[in-house]
Amino acid sequence: MATEGRGRPRLEQPRRPGGTAREQILDAAAELFTTAGYANTSTRRIAEAVGVRQASLYHHFATKDDILDALLAGTVDGPLRLAAELLDEPGPAPQRLHTLVVADVSQLSAATWNLGALYLLPELRIDRFAEFRCSREELRDRYRQLAQTAIVECGGPVTAIDLPFRLVESEINRRSDDQTSPPQQPWVIAEGALRVLGYHGDFAALRECSAHWLGLRSGRSATG
Amino acid sequence: MATEGRGRPRLEQPRRPGGTAREQILDAAAELFTTAGYANTSTRRIAEAVGVRQASLYHHFATKDDILDALLAGTVDGPLRLAAELLDEPGPAPQRLHTLVVADVSQLSAATWNLGALYLLPELRIDRFAEFRCSREELRDRYRQLAQTAIVECGGPVTAIDLPFRLVESEINRRSDDQTSPPQQPWVIAEGALRVLGYHGDFAALRECSAHWLGLRSGRSATG
Repeated sequence: MATEGRGRPRLEQPRRPGGTAREQILDAAAELFTTAGYANTSTRRIAEAVGVRQASLYHHFATKDDILDALLAGTVDGPLRLAAELLDEPGPAPQRLHTLVVADVSQLSAATWNLGALYLLPELRIDRFAEFRCSREELRDRYRQLAQTAIVECGGPVTAIDLPFRLVESEINRRSDDQTSPPQQPWVIAEGALRVLGYHGDFAALRECSAHWLGLRSGRSATG
Repeated sequence: MATEGRGRPRLEQPRRPGGTAREQILDAAAELFTTAGYANTSTRRIAEAVGVRQASLYHHFATKDDILDALLAGTVDGPLRLAAELLDEPGPAPQRLHTLVVADVSQLSAATWNLGALYLLPELRIDRFAEFRCSREELRDRYRQLAQTAIVECGGPVTAIDLPFRLVESEINRRSDDQTSPPQQPWVIAEGALRVLGYHGDFAALRECSAHWLGLRSGRSATG
């Protein structure tokens, strides 16, 4: 009988491997929301999938909306922080935007469940999700700030300012269609995000620098 | 008491303006699916919204899935035909792809309801929707064929082959976020779709030609 981080003893034997009870609830909910649908998933079904009682689930999340909110926040919080950091960095905007796109597509592509597929749910329009909507809008705005500077530096089309953010989120649709996560995808989208802004510079150098910054291996040549 | 095209007298007074009973059912369903959610919408609620009995609704559509299928088909059938036509046309691929993107984003942007927001529903993965999934995949493939030829003609990056289709569908997300349909949007995305493929030619000429082909007024300069 283990004691969980947030108190209360756990009486049940969890069905899902690894992690705290909270993490297991989030993982089971993410699976059900993305495979059975949000409206079709009850907290009871989530509790069953984890192998805990509903009462234990309510100890961690008061409502199903709270679970969804926690999952959605997890898709934007990291990119938001990275975008703030990159906005404060000196150096050419195309490079900083490239790094952000690679990191963001990597997390969208590598996450166990394709949670971005829930962004278009009409259920998200209620007040409960105002904070998430705000965070995502803030992320979009940071993309736009970097894109704006990159457009000025490249003499590119000002109307393309929103397209890098859109290309990043298109990874959600591609993943849903193909059910795969090709390792070069973040690099392909990052190159596209720069090209729409009129960047014609050295993509190999961008990749090298982003890989270094993010501690990744450099992506396969997007032109190769 | 009017007699509908497909037989059976209509006893009720419809609540929605214009169109046949079938069109009114589709419009009411599209509104409910995109604003209340697919799983949250019953055929009973659709019938109520139209102001007809459920029995009348079942005369046109046997199941809720049949309504969704008809709505989804409406989002790809037009672009599919246009793509086939453009693939058969002579002339530079960048021009033909530009025309397809302008037309497709225009219809996604101008439709009364943002039906593309339903593409990511897990409900679509069942066999019932295999035909729709096939049609959308076929549309994606026609985009890729045009993109492939454009890449060769422009000496662009081969890995960008899927990005024009992705940029087109990103209009669904933008529309969901902004709840607006700016008239220049099809032209902005078409220019982006060409830039990702390495096209650096004369965008004004592309716009002129696409506008002529589609019988539209030419889009505002995407660089202006």
